[in-house]
Amino acid sequence: MDFIRELKARAALVDRALEEYLPTDGTHPAVIHEAMRYSLFAGGKRLRPVLALSASEVAGGSVEKIMPAACALELIHTYSLIHDDLPAMDDDDFRRGRPTCHKKYGEAMAILAGDALLTMAFELLTSGALTGALPARESLAVISEVAVAAGSRGLVGGQVVDIISDDSVDPATLEYIHRHKTGALYRGSVRLGAILSGAERHTLDRLTVYAEHLGLAFQIADDILDVTGDEEKIGKPLKSDVKNKKATYPALYGLAAARAKAYDCRDRALTQLEAFGPEADFLRELVRFVVDRDH
Amino acid sequence: MDFIRELKARAALVDRALEEYLPTDGTHPAVIHEAMRYSLFAGGKRLRPVLALSASEVAGGSVEKIMPAACALELIHTYSLIHDDLPAMDDDDFRRGRPTCHKKYGEAMAILAGDALLTMAFELLTSGALTGALPARESLAVISEVAVAAGSRGLVGGQVVDIISDDSVDPATLEYIHRHKTGALYRGSVRLGAILSGAERHTLDRLTVYAEHLGLAFQIADDILDVTGDEEKIGKPLKSDVKNKKATYPALYGLAAARAKAYDCRDRALTQLEAFGPEADFLRELVRFVVDRDH
Repeated sequence: MDFIRELKARAALVDRALEEYLPTDGTHPAVIHEAMRYSLFAGGKRLRPVLALSASEVAGGSVEKIMPAACALELIHTYSLIHDDLPAMDDDDFRRGRPTCHKKYGEAMAILAGDALLTMAFELLTSGALTGALPARESLAVISEVAVAAGSRGLVGGQVVDIISDDSVDPATLEYIHRHKTGALYRGSVRLGAILSGAERHTLDRLTVYAEHLGLAFQIADDILDVTGDEEKIGKPLKSDVKNKKATYPALYGLAAARAKAYDCRDRALTQLEAFGPEADFLRELVRFVVDRDH
Repeated sequence: MDFIRELKARAALVDRALEEYLPTDGTHPAVIHEAMRYSLFAGGKRLRPVLALSASEVAGGSVEKIMPAACALELIHTYSLIHDDLPAMDDDDFRRGRPTCHKKYGEAMAILAGDALLTMAFELLTSGALTGALPARESLAVISEVAVAAGSRGLVGGQVVDIISDDSVDPATLEYIHRHKTGALYRGSVRLGAILSGAERHTLDRLTVYAEHLGLAFQIADDILDVTGDEEKIGKPLKSDVKNKKATYPALYGLAAARAKAYDCRDRALTQLEAFGPEADFLRELVRFVVDRDH
């Protein structure tokens, strides 16, 4: 498999779907839809929707049917980035080489664009079932899971602990932050794809554990890149974790041990996929890519 | 009917339910759950959940079954107040006589508390169907409607136009702001209660039009109170609309014409209820109260 090519193809499918679902720039009130689209179409890798689609593939589902729900995950991810970048939070001026939403549209509009994206995610999560493409009960279970994964005991909870912690956090707190701030939505993405595709219990369980290790591997790799990466390739100022006095895996364990931990997560994720055939190849390549990428 | 007593009794039911659904103060991470509860239990009148329960009564539904969904509306209302009060938005230091969420917990935590309340609303909206108390299909329709009512073409859209407008707005813009910023959620509340209680089409239509007039009546009355009201009774500094250079009905039409408009909305709302018996008495009293209240 040419993984990068396949990743880009899946991300392009997601991009086309997002383009279709989002209100156009001219929709009244125009400025909020512009701001939503500005951040949503800023060149994200679409990893969460792609994860959902790829888990659906393992469970024998249909890309077309779960696409609206998969795209909801990208809306939630984008909202969380917009709010995280705000002056009251991480105060970042650039993301992916462009001004952040509040630098471009002002703080009020950035807060509201985030709110609107989060809200619209739940509209998208109902659409498959309302058109009859997806089962109602499973859709409701997924909406509940996504809300928990994104809420005060998930993504928001992780961001809260991140904000109130300094760089002297202990390993348990660092792991809490990552399991919640990024891990919860990765896990939710994989489960969404599997549940909406009618995955059996043991398939769902394996994909869930895969996603948990993938999420942690991703975050450790991200921390390592922040120390060792190439600013040009990543598109944002590096050593931002050091500047913001954020705890990171390399800071806590050293670079070599952090790398070893990322590889261990990758291997544990791969173990969970042993029961599956070629339909899980993309997920296998994905966790390898996450650990080995240079941007 | 002793309306005030009945209103308080229904609000007390909502309070008890919210108390049960919300994570306790000690739930990790404690600060976010404290901030969520601080704003949620700040003495709100619970009008939106009460509207949902009262529409359900007209449609012959069960208070107990729709309570989680009704409470979701109060979470969305509270999130919108927290974000509206932020320095980047209306920059209000007090609400209901207490420091606003960001004055008490800081801006970052206020943004996140709003995000978490909005997210948790959608968890609550699934709970009736997931426990088997409510039908799945109607629950999905309601989740979609609530997301649209709260999103960029609803509540958020109204706030956007409010922020980018000054006090020279034309009548159409003023009406857009109110129909969206507050009207959409009133309408959504009544429809939620009716739909989840299996209301027939003509009942739903009548209640919908009732809610649209109620929402506008409420907003006009609010604008009038801001000019004529007693600061002590209302619990926030008055003439804030003038200070913030916001357009209001009294400013645009004069006080007498604004009052006439509020009464007209009340009468149109009451007309919609003529088809119903005593089961609609509470909704009748409510729209009278909204127009005549002094706080």
